[in-house]
Amino acid sequence: MAEEVKLYGTWASPFSRRIELALKLKSVPYEYFEEDLSNKSPELLKYNPVHKKVPVLVHKGKPIAESQVILEYIDETWKNNPILPQDPYQRATARFWAKFIDEKILTTGSKVKFLAGKEREDVIEEFVQQLKFLEGELSGKDFFGGDSIGFVDIVANIIAFWVPVTQEVLGFEAFTQEKYPVLFNWIEKIQEIDVVKECRPPRDKHLAYIKARIEGLKSASK
Amino acid sequence: MAEEVKLYGTWASPFSRRIELALKLKSVPYEYFEEDLSNKSPELLKYNPVHKKVPVLVHKGKPIAESQVILEYIDETWKNNPILPQDPYQRATARFWAKFIDEKILTTGSKVKFLAGKEREDVIEEFVQQLKFLEGELSGKDFFGGDSIGFVDIVANIIAFWVPVTQEVLGFEAFTQEKYPVLFNWIEKIQEIDVVKECRPPRDKHLAYIKARIEGLKSASK
Repeated sequence: MAEEVKLYGTWASPFSRRIELALKLKSVPYEYFEEDLSNKSPELLKYNPVHKKVPVLVHKGKPIAESQVILEYIDETWKNNPILPQDPYQRATARFWAKFIDEKILTTGSKVKFLAGKEREDVIEEFVQQLKFLEGELSGKDFFGGDSIGFVDIVANIIAFWVPVTQEVLGFEAFTQEKYPVLFNWIEKIQEIDVVKECRPPRDKHLAYIKARIEGLKSASK
Repeated sequence: MAEEVKLYGTWASPFSRRIELALKLKSVPYEYFEEDLSNKSPELLKYNPVHKKVPVLVHKGKPIAESQVILEYIDETWKNNPILPQDPYQRATARFWAKFIDEKILTTGSKVKFLAGKEREDVIEEFVQQLKFLEGELSGKDFFGGDSIGFVDIVANIIAFWVPVTQEVLGFEAFTQEKYPVLFNWIEKIQEIDVVKECRPPRDKHLAYIKARIEGLKSASK
């Protein structure tokens, strides 16, 4: 492999899948290493000593961590099929929403599993409001990137494929087609794209994995 | 003002000061609006409806929020005196450390004020370890950006000027010259730069402000 692109990831990580999606969209060949997060490889620990997390992209021997940082690197290194727009204002808008998804929606969503009663209701309401902002941003467009899949669409893979499965496991119904017709229309559209299909975990296996993971986290926090 | 650059910020916000620093480094003229965070202006709420926070940069009528997103926009819009390197790998490295500062060091540091006893000690130890990573990254260089001030140096303004004042108010001594000679040498160097001096809050006023703010937060959380 002339370019020497290696990716350390796990099949169930939305962050790893973002990288695979971007590489596939740009037809960059890569070697994939599936990590066992309960027994991380010496390579992962060497390449990401700060966070010790997937995904890590290694290009010509040099490691890069953090999924959004990797996506920007991929877009700057392989310029075909750009994932960020060219215009600085549109680029800023894309970065703003990508950051919003990771820092707000994910953070809020991940609190639900540890809460009960009124606190849980409040966090779900916050989650609902944050998703409304995203629904508004997407309104009138097929993709966050406009006419085709782009940076925010790739980052929002977690909204399309992880949020529905997670809320099913946790037993709440905040993210529904009725409340978010625009986002659900977008999910329909992106899952028709072949490379998106390839980068989506199989639903049943995914559901079982998230269930086991959440039960593990809950018992660990007791 | 032909370019119509407006900045909504507050003098004591490291995030606002990053934007002023970048604009000054590039000699971009701008109109500055000091916000009262206890009584936010209708403009701030209109321009940043999602987070309702400073800083917001408005360029030709279009708003951008989130300090690191704004810094990237500034660098892409005014190309003189680049703040990010040109090489994709070096750009990724800069983004990685900037993200590390905001998501790890700041998050850990801000927990100290609400904790006591063993929990406080543990969080301070975590903070110490995170700063060690930053010390390692800077080792052998004058600036994070190499020979001159760049993206990470601008983001790390909070390490240079906010962390020392905050730990003084909170009564702990994690960040010292003895433990972090490289970072302290860097602070010496950047504070010699005129525009950095202009974007640094006056120490006494800053100390009084942080003291009042932490006391306010502590009594609100009781």
